[in-house]
Amino acid sequence: MPWYQLNDANDPKLDELSRKYNLHPLHLEDARSPDESVKVDTAPHYTFAVFKPVRLVPDPDNPGEQTPTFSAIDIFAGKDFLITISDPTCPTTVQALDRARRDGDDEHPGKLLSLILDTIVDLYFPAIDHFDDRIDDLEDKVFDNPSPEILQSIFAIKRELIDLRRVLVNTRDASLHLQRDPNTIIDADHQPYVRDTYDHIARLLDSVETQRDLLNNTLDIYLSSVANRTNEVMKVLTVLGTIALPALAISGIYGMNLKGLPFEDSPHGAAWVAAVTIVATVLFLYLLRRFKWL
Amino acid sequence: MPWYQLNDANDPKLDELSRKYNLHPLHLEDARSPDESVKVDTAPHYTFAVFKPVRLVPDPDNPGEQTPTFSAIDIFAGKDFLITISDPTCPTTVQALDRARRDGDDEHPGKLLSLILDTIVDLYFPAIDHFDDRIDDLEDKVFDNPSPEILQSIFAIKRELIDLRRVLVNTRDASLHLQRDPNTIIDADHQPYVRDTYDHIARLLDSVETQRDLLNNTLDIYLSSVANRTNEVMKVLTVLGTIALPALAISGIYGMNLKGLPFEDSPHGAAWVAAVTIVATVLFLYLLRRFKWL
Amino acid sequence: MPWYQLNDANDPKLDELSRKYNLHPLHLEDARSPDESVKVDTAPHYTFAVFKPVRLVPDPDNPGEQTPTFSAIDIFAGKDFLITISDPTCPTTVQALDRARRDGDDEHPGKLLSLILDTIVDLYFPAIDHFDDRIDDLEDKVFDNPSPEILQSIFAIKRELIDLRRVLVNTRDASLHLQRDPNTIIDADHQPYVRDTYDHIARLLDSVETQRDLLNNTLDIYLSSVANRTNEVMKVLTVLGTIALPALAISGIYGMNLKGLPFEDSPHGAAWVAAVTIVATVLFLYLLRRFKWL
Amino acid sequence: MPWYQLNDANDPKLDELSRKYNLHPLHLEDARSPDESVKVDTAPHYTFAVFKPVRLVPDPDNPGEQTPTFSAIDIFAGKDFLITISDPTCPTTVQALDRARRDGDDEHPGKLLSLILDTIVDLYFPAIDHFDDRIDDLEDKVFDNPSPEILQSIFAIKRELIDLRRVLVNTRDASLHLQRDPNTIIDADHQPYVRDTYDHIARLLDSVETQRDLLNNTLDIYLSSVANRTNEVMKVLTVLGTIALPALAISGIYGMNLKGLPFEDSPHGAAWVAAVTIVATVLFLYLLRRFKWL
Amino acid sequence: MPWYQLNDANDPKLDELSRKYNLHPLHLEDARSPDESVKVDTAPHYTFAVFKPVRLVPDPDNPGEQTPTFSAIDIFAGKDFLITISDPTCPTTVQALDRARRDGDDEHPGKLLSLILDTIVDLYFPAIDHFDDRIDDLEDKVFDNPSPEILQSIFAIKRELIDLRRVLVNTRDASLHLQRDPNTIIDADHQPYVRDTYDHIARLLDSVETQRDLLNNTLDIYLSSVANRTNEVMKVLTVLGTIALPALAISGIYGMNLKGLPFEDSPHGAAWVAAVTIVATVLFLYLLRRFKWL
Repeated sequence: MPWYQLNDANDPKLDELSRKYNLHPLHLEDARSPDESVKVDTAPHYTFAVFKPVRLVPDPDNPGEQTPTFSAIDIFAGKDFLITISDPTCPTTVQALDRARRDGDDEHPGKLLSLILDTIVDLYFPAIDHFDDRIDDLEDKVFDNPSPEILQSIFAIKRELIDLRRVLVNTRDASLHLQRDPNTIIDADHQPYVRDTYDHIARLLDSVETQRDLLNNTLDIYLSSVANRTNEVMKVLTVLGTIALPALAISGIYGMNLKGLPFEDSPHGAAWVAAVTIVATVLFLYLLRRFKWL
Repeated sequence: MPWYQLNDANDPKLDELSRKYNLHPLHLEDARSPDESVKVDTAPHYTFAVFKPVRLVPDPDNPGEQTPTFSAIDIFAGKDFLITISDPTCPTTVQALDRARRDGDDEHPGKLLSLILDTIVDLYFPAIDHFDDRIDDLEDKVFDNPSPEILQSIFAIKRELIDLRRVLVNTRDASLHLQRDPNTIIDADHQPYVRDTYDHIARLLDSVETQRDLLNNTLDIYLSSVANRTNEVMKVLTVLGTIALPALAISGIYGMNLKGLPFEDSPHGAAWVAAVTIVATVLFLYLLRRFKWL
Repeated sequence: MPWYQLNDANDPKLDELSRKYNLHPLHLEDARSPDESVKVDTAPHYTFAVFKPVRLVPDPDNPGEQTPTFSAIDIFAGKDFLITISDPTCPTTVQALDRARRDGDDEHPGKLLSLILDTIVDLYFPAIDHFDDRIDDLEDKVFDNPSPEILQSIFAIKRELIDLRRVLVNTRDASLHLQRDPNTIIDADHQPYVRDTYDHIARLLDSVETQRDLLNNTLDIYLSSVANRTNEVMKVLTVLGTIALPALAISGIYGMNLKGLPFEDSPHGAAWVAAVTIVATVLFLYLLRRFKWL
Repeated sequence: MPWYQLNDANDPKLDELSRKYNLHPLHLEDARSPDESVKVDTAPHYTFAVFKPVRLVPDPDNPGEQTPTFSAIDIFAGKDFLITISDPTCPTTVQALDRARRDGDDEHPGKLLSLILDTIVDLYFPAIDHFDDRIDDLEDKVFDNPSPEILQSIFAIKRELIDLRRVLVNTRDASLHLQRDPNTIIDADHQPYVRDTYDHIARLLDSVETQRDLLNNTLDIYLSSVANRTNEVMKVLTVLGTIALPALAISGIYGMNLKGLPFEDSPHGAAWVAAVTIVATVLFLYLLRRFKWL
Repeated sequence: MPWYQLNDANDPKLDELSRKYNLHPLHLEDARSPDESVKVDTAPHYTFAVFKPVRLVPDPDNPGEQTPTFSAIDIFAGKDFLITISDPTCPTTVQALDRARRDGDDEHPGKLLSLILDTIVDLYFPAIDHFDDRIDDLEDKVFDNPSPEILQSIFAIKRELIDLRRVLVNTRDASLHLQRDPNTIIDADHQPYVRDTYDHIARLLDSVETQRDLLNNTLDIYLSSVANRTNEVMKVLTVLGTIALPALAISGIYGMNLKGLPFEDSPHGAAWVAAVTIVATVLFLYLLRRFKWL
């Protein structure tokens, strides 16, 4: 059975294969779209699949961090032919095709298809685990020091999870299609492998949901920490005001150019007034606390 | 096969056609309603469809921005006739009808219907992409400068997405009806095209959901930035108060018309008191930081 | 075919009709309950329906505003009789019964039932549109001036929408029951009319959902406006503090009864000190802005 | 047909009945569990049901308020026997059993079961209505005076509604089981009564959902009122600061022991300076308002 | 019937058993994965199950608290063999196996499987009840003193409930699989026990949902308490400012080196000015309250 591997959907060889194997024009259009999404479609004599392998690449916005990036692989799997179109620079795709060549069997294109899907799905696990570490890290930091950088990281991860979740949901629907459609290229012997892959995708989606919950938790922690700190700062400000008030009022009073103030002419006037000020401040703080105003 | 194109549902010609092709009065009522919504309904001898083509027009409220606007097209597709009623000034509608005339086939009104729907759905992509750019732009701005104008833009886009989503959900239900109803005008040969259109609508709805998530993210960023800034401003105010307190208290004390203050008669009294003030301020700031009150 | 119209479910005539047409005691109990809810129930020889016509009445709490109010209509539609029980002072009910009498047909109680339901549903549109105007109005006001009165209006409309939605959901379920139940009084000829009514209810519910989304938007605008304003007020307070600080500190220093202050004996001392104060204030504001503390 | 009423599931008589009527050990275990939940289970020759009658008792935490409290009733309804196990001190249970004895029929244990369920469900209405009054009351108060006590009441009611909702959902599932299971003791004649009860439970659940919505509304009102008041207090503080600033600065300046101040030696110096101060204050307030800083 | 109990999935004995009983390689892979999740899978001649027994262990982060910890048990239940692989140090697993050995029956591996599942599920109840106590405790504390430690506990419990819920949902799906799959090892006689276990899991999930609701309530109480306290502190600060203002202004005025102030030369000048100050302060507070500014 021939296996054609093309590096680019715009390769004119694809048109030739299309004529030879009678590929549906809508599938060619999908393969050539720059913005294709994950799908499985069953034509009468072959199964067309688009998957999105993921890999971690260094994040240009966050030096030292990695970000998941998607490429695309198109597969036309007929009874007696297999056409794969994929970016040869993506290590995930290369690994998936290598494993299919090693473990697969030229007589069963359905097995090759299920092996490729399985490898692609298995390589989502490192991408998801990578977020686990980053979220744990954020959660530790946010209690100690809720800085705006943490906020920015939370929202950046949220955004990446939105994308990841969308690809995974589509991959789950595609693998369900492979299980349910009676005309699909996957025969009964290989269905357990597709079901196993489906279980893996369900577990991945479950992890993404958990990570979203944890991120929302982290955001709530951030927001309540900021509210708390504002409250603390307000209290400090109020205590300062309370301490300052008697001192300022009393010193203002003795600064007046008036006659008749107590201790006015006493040689230890300053000491007496200082004592009065201290007593007034302590009384003031005591009263605020007594009536639970602070 | 005759194809009647009317520019206005109130054209008396429609009544004539209605009598000739036995159109259902409820469908006529729908076509003439100023506020019709997307639907597909199957009568025994024809399929009635209402779609809402979208186009971007300059936004009167936001100079320099564009806003999606909807028109309506009504289609009566029978086995041996096609009636379309549409606003001739809407470029999306014109494009949809032109493509149907070019690629369609007079003997298959079902194919014409599916071509019109396909063009209308494809022209939703630029409207959605347009929001992608605006949301990216808002997200960049909100971190740097969370101004009330950004808030206003967030809520304006949210409102437009609510409308867009409603039309898309109805269009998805309509295209599902075209696939499921056995009496519909679309025959088996053209079903793959309707399924493909359905996939496109699903992808559009997916994008709208993602955009709503991103907008909520942007709103959360805005709100937490404002909370953060309030907190920062409070801290500045408190630090100012803290710096001012010893200076004000000490200068107040030496302003009192009393006897017995230290350095009272020293020729360098001012310098001594200045030194005491500075020491007190530094000590004060140190204590606040030491006990993590600030 | 006799049509009995009663103004009150407690009319003894109902007991008489109940005996004559063998009405189920649970239906009588429902009709007499002061707090009945919308439902359709199929007995072997008749269909029992409760609907809730809506009308707008002046709102006692908000002079100048209107508020939707519900009455109730009970219908027993058998093959050869029709009993309606309704409040004769409700204009919506009167209009529904008048249209049924005019357009209906005495031989088809199912048609009468569907006409009454259709009129009642159509008269929900003005009630819903009325909220559209009020919400638009609130949205315009909230950006200019987020006052507590707007908050009160938002919550009042939310409460009314909760009630309206509940009645509409029950009416949708009732109309679905009329379509699905094979024993219902509505025959195949009149089913398209019930389906059409169902579409109208779906559109009404859709509008209510949109209005709830818009109200939540308005509430978010309100809350973020208040947070914004608090932030603005804090900044003004801090700028005031910052401006005041050097003036207060310097004037305090020169108020001290000490020797050794610069410019102490200069005849233009006040001018020099004023210059120093102004320079210090400007420097202070510059530093705060320079380090982005404000 | 014998009807055994036991006051306690630990009564040894239950073991005896269990042997006589061949009751399933899992059902006995359920009946004796201190923490049983509402359920209906069908054994080959009898139906086992657990319901939770509700009653209002004075709330120990809120003098003057009432709180819903649940007891439990276990029912084994066979073709030729009925066993009920219930707390004889619960007035709701007593009322349910009394009505079953009065209106029921010894030959139809299914009717007895449906009568007991119906009375129990009907007695949920006063418990729900009781919350309506309390929520209305809270909503009125929260606008006038958003105190922490209101907050505490909101959360207390939320907690009670969580419990109530859980019991109602289980009761709804139990009544559905009675309708759907073909082996249940309820025969076709009594199914309309179970359906009617089911409608009542649906209405109760609907009310609970509405009450939760209303409570969330009240909580939102509370939170936005607090935000509003904080904002108001900040404004007052800032206005005070603004009024005080010119007075303090000018009086500070004239307190300096310097020469060269204007009006220094004027006999009406105080009056002139007072005039300057007042003019400065008014100008200041005008500028703040002019540039919308306040 | 032989029962093989292995302590480690990497035991070479498993490979031997795998050959003997023809176990599926995917199931061996699952059993050996360090990160397996709860599942039930039916092979033609045996049922494979993974469960996650829970136990409470002292929490290293919160001295004095306990935290739920999961181990794993793998079960291969064939018609004539049972293989269990479990950690022998987990008391929950030990208890489950002991009960299966005591109450089970060597001829019915399905009964053994259902007994093991039942014990594992029953031992979730103490783990859930443990959270009930902690949440009640938090709720009591949060009203009295909303400290950041409470916040930290809320989020820690939220995180543990996320994990617990995930395991329970998977266990519910697994027990549903045991009920629905016609090829499962559980025969009709033991189905009531699996259904009973399913009911217990549903009740556990119900409790987890309630606990999440209660935690969200507690978080809302925390946040509104902090908002309240900030508001209170602001009011105290403003009252302090209000009290200080007249004293500071008047004492500043009499500190000016100017002529023409009233009471300037009066021997009781200080007393007069003190009286004026007190009157001004009281008037000020009265006005603020009068116009509801405070």
